[in-house]
Amino acid sequence: MHKPTPISGFPEYSPKQTAHLLSLIAKVNEVFRLHGFSPIDTPVVEREEVLLSKGGDADKELYLLKRRDPNATSEESDLGLRFDLTVPLARYAAMHFNDLPFPFKRSHVGPCFRGERPQEGRFRQFIQADIDVLNVDSIPLQFDIEIPSIIYEALMAIEVTNFRFRISNRKVLTGALLSLQIENTQLVTRVLDKIEKIGRDQVIKTLTEENGLSSDKAEICTQLAEINSSNGSIREQVQKLGLEHDLLSEGLDELDFVLGGLHSRHRDAKEVFTADLSITRGFDYYTGSVFEVAWLDHPSLGTISGGGRYGDLASSFIRKNIPGVGMSLGISRIFSKLVKPEDKTVLPEQFLPVLITRLDRERPNRADEFASILRKRGIAAEVYPLPDKIQKQLKYANRRGSRYVVFDSDSVVKDMVSGEQVGFDPEGWVPG
Amino acid sequence: MHKPTPISGFPEYSPKQTAHLLSLIAKVNEVFRLHGFSPIDTPVVEREEVLLSKGGDADKELYLLKRRDPNATSEESDLGLRFDLTVPLARYAAMHFNDLPFPFKRSHVGPCFRGERPQEGRFRQFIQADIDVLNVDSIPLQFDIEIPSIIYEALMAIEVTNFRFRISNRKVLTGALLSLQIENTQLVTRVLDKIEKIGRDQVIKTLTEENGLSSDKAEICTQLAEINSSNGSIREQVQKLGLEHDLLSEGLDELDFVLGGLHSRHRDAKEVFTADLSITRGFDYYTGSVFEVAWLDHPSLGTISGGGRYGDLASSFIRKNIPGVGMSLGISRIFSKLVKPEDKTVLPEQFLPVLITRLDRERPNRADEFASILRKRGIAAEVYPLPDKIQKQLKYANRRGSRYVVFDSDSVVKDMVSGEQVGFDPEGWVPG
Repeated sequence: MHKPTPISGFPEYSPKQTAHLLSLIAKVNEVFRLHGFSPIDTPVVEREEVLLSKGGDADKELYLLKRRDPNATSEESDLGLRFDLTVPLARYAAMHFNDLPFPFKRSHVGPCFRGERPQEGRFRQFIQADIDVLNVDSIPLQFDIEIPSIIYEALMAIEVTNFRFRISNRKVLTGALLSLQIENTQLVTRVLDKIEKIGRDQVIKTLTEENGLSSDKAEICTQLAEINSSNGSIREQVQKLGLEHDLLSEGLDELDFVLGGLHSRHRDAKEVFTADLSITRGFDYYTGSVFEVAWLDHPSLGTISGGGRYGDLASSFIRKNIPGVGMSLGISRIFSKLVKPEDKTVLPEQFLPVLITRLDRERPNRADEFASILRKRGIAAEVYPLPDKIQKQLKYANRRGSRYVVFDSDSVVKDMVSGEQVGFDPEGWVPG
Repeated sequence: MHKPTPISGFPEYSPKQTAHLLSLIAKVNEVFRLHGFSPIDTPVVEREEVLLSKGGDADKELYLLKRRDPNATSEESDLGLRFDLTVPLARYAAMHFNDLPFPFKRSHVGPCFRGERPQEGRFRQFIQADIDVLNVDSIPLQFDIEIPSIIYEALMAIEVTNFRFRISNRKVLTGALLSLQIENTQLVTRVLDKIEKIGRDQVIKTLTEENGLSSDKAEICTQLAEINSSNGSIREQVQKLGLEHDLLSEGLDELDFVLGGLHSRHRDAKEVFTADLSITRGFDYYTGSVFEVAWLDHPSLGTISGGGRYGDLASSFIRKNIPGVGMSLGISRIFSKLVKPEDKTVLPEQFLPVLITRLDRERPNRADEFASILRKRGIAAEVYPLPDKIQKQLKYANRRGSRYVVFDSDSVVKDMVSGEQVGFDPEGWVPG
């Protein structure tokens, strides 16, 4: 026998902290519902080939399943745990294509798993809250404004403040690289994505030494990735670099449209939505707008939300063109900064029932009747289990942390905080 | 590229079916809350040694994790997926013992995983909804009435009818076996547990041939397991077998108390609560009352809920005596019979937003303002993304399945079902 220890990267919380977490999730879900998104919930388990279909670093961090029983059939040999909610959505949209009404707006809140090194705000099991809108063949650019707007509202709903949307468009970077006659745009994009982490010198070094770029081109690429709203118009900054390409222009037009739309929708919070060409997002499936949200109060936390537009989400699974726009909110990461350590030892008020004593020996069912009436009115109630002495029953109420105690014997309710006692009518009484 | 196929034992649902499932879970959670149970949510991953701590057949069906990356450190080599919510509760109570206020009433709704052969109502990923009350050193027998009562209410809340609680007490069977001088009570208990599945002849054969019982004793054991309320008083039926033991008497007293309590609480539904000595529950940790719920409409489904009293839940993890009483509701199993196949191709009404057209070119923000006001009032609303032709906008509303369409240009709302059109005031309008 030994006391179990926590498993690194798999956080768990006290009942009060859990109630706090659940209330955040409920608020986020309510914002999603108000905007017409329907929840789905797919299994946490997917086929390995599905999980690997989107490229990126997925394979590195993947958890696969195995049966402990060595005699079990190998049916499960190709199953793993999902690492995000986008890949399952692609698989879901392909598998249920004929049943889904498009445009399909779905929300999904659930656990994901990555075998990465646990560190600040990074967990091995973590909850993501996603919204995506999918359509067949095309989807208006308006949704590139809509989706970040909803995420903005969701963040406001859970009282996260001082955050910044950093917005770019994959076409800008790809178009710029093409105008520089750089062919392996994916590789260069991935290097530029790291500029914030590894710094400009290291980026130039990697681009010249590993990707074979001339130092001139490497310098221009780096300057491109350094462009953001805080230095003035994006378009002008790009033009100064002397780059020209149809895809680049298209990207700049889209970026203007999206940023303009967000600024006009959120006139009081324009500073929240900024352009930043260093943002590319890791996955290969983004083809247009890309979004990241940084929480300025907690810079070391990294991105608390991200997403973008994909030209064709489900191309690995079905011969249908399903473009979409979506974002994902890192609930566990955000909660790691909102959780209150002092909530570790107490129960959540909203789940603490009114305690009804069991003192009336002549009417032994009275306490149960009181409880039943309160519950029908939506008020949580608990009857002390035994006809013990009054002191013992009050001690129990105290240990449970119940604010209100109803005395069944004389129909009185006591507020344990103020000490006030009033007559108790189970049909009419309202907790203060 | 190939269209992914479903993974056997891992069900998933359409948005409307998901909304149905989520509403069941919400109703069950509300019943739990009204009775003073606080939700917790532990990681789905536990250490292998924790998962194996309770005996039973857990090892056979266990899923373990492995990293796909062969270079990953072996940190995760001893992790697996939980197969129920009771073992995680035991571990949680031991690990957070000093932070938990006892008696500790917790609810937990979440996915569990078993590598069993998928069959009717049996899944490899399935949702359980558990309530347990834990205390230090002792816990009143009253809770053996309380817990099944709450599960009864939860089943009523999700409109499951025609079910039966089958109740026994481990002490009855163990006491009876001891009075027959049978020593390996655990082994014999497990054989008797199967009487419904394998039949009385096979039970007698196993008891005599494999467990070395005389045919007289095997016959008495079998008769014991065949005792249930439908043949009259349990006590009299047991007495007829001529068995006597202190533990047996204690068990009969407890069984009387629990059944009597349930009958007096549920006077209109006495037939729901029956005694049945064949019920033992698989796990070794039950020491007193044991409960199972059968859904008479779906006998092939097996047990839809089960649980009981354990003398010491966390003895594998901590030197504290933590007895408890709990039950688990098989949400996925129940839902497999409630889910509506016709809900496969439509969206859930409660998530379908009011569609607001974007027709008013002079006041382009009006549609967005309408939506914003409706959302503030808790009404889901969606604005058509582009200033397209009216036919196109109505087609979209139709495809989405929206019941109400608001015309932004002339402040009118149309009920698409009745065809009725009325003036629209965003501050006052209420969907019918």
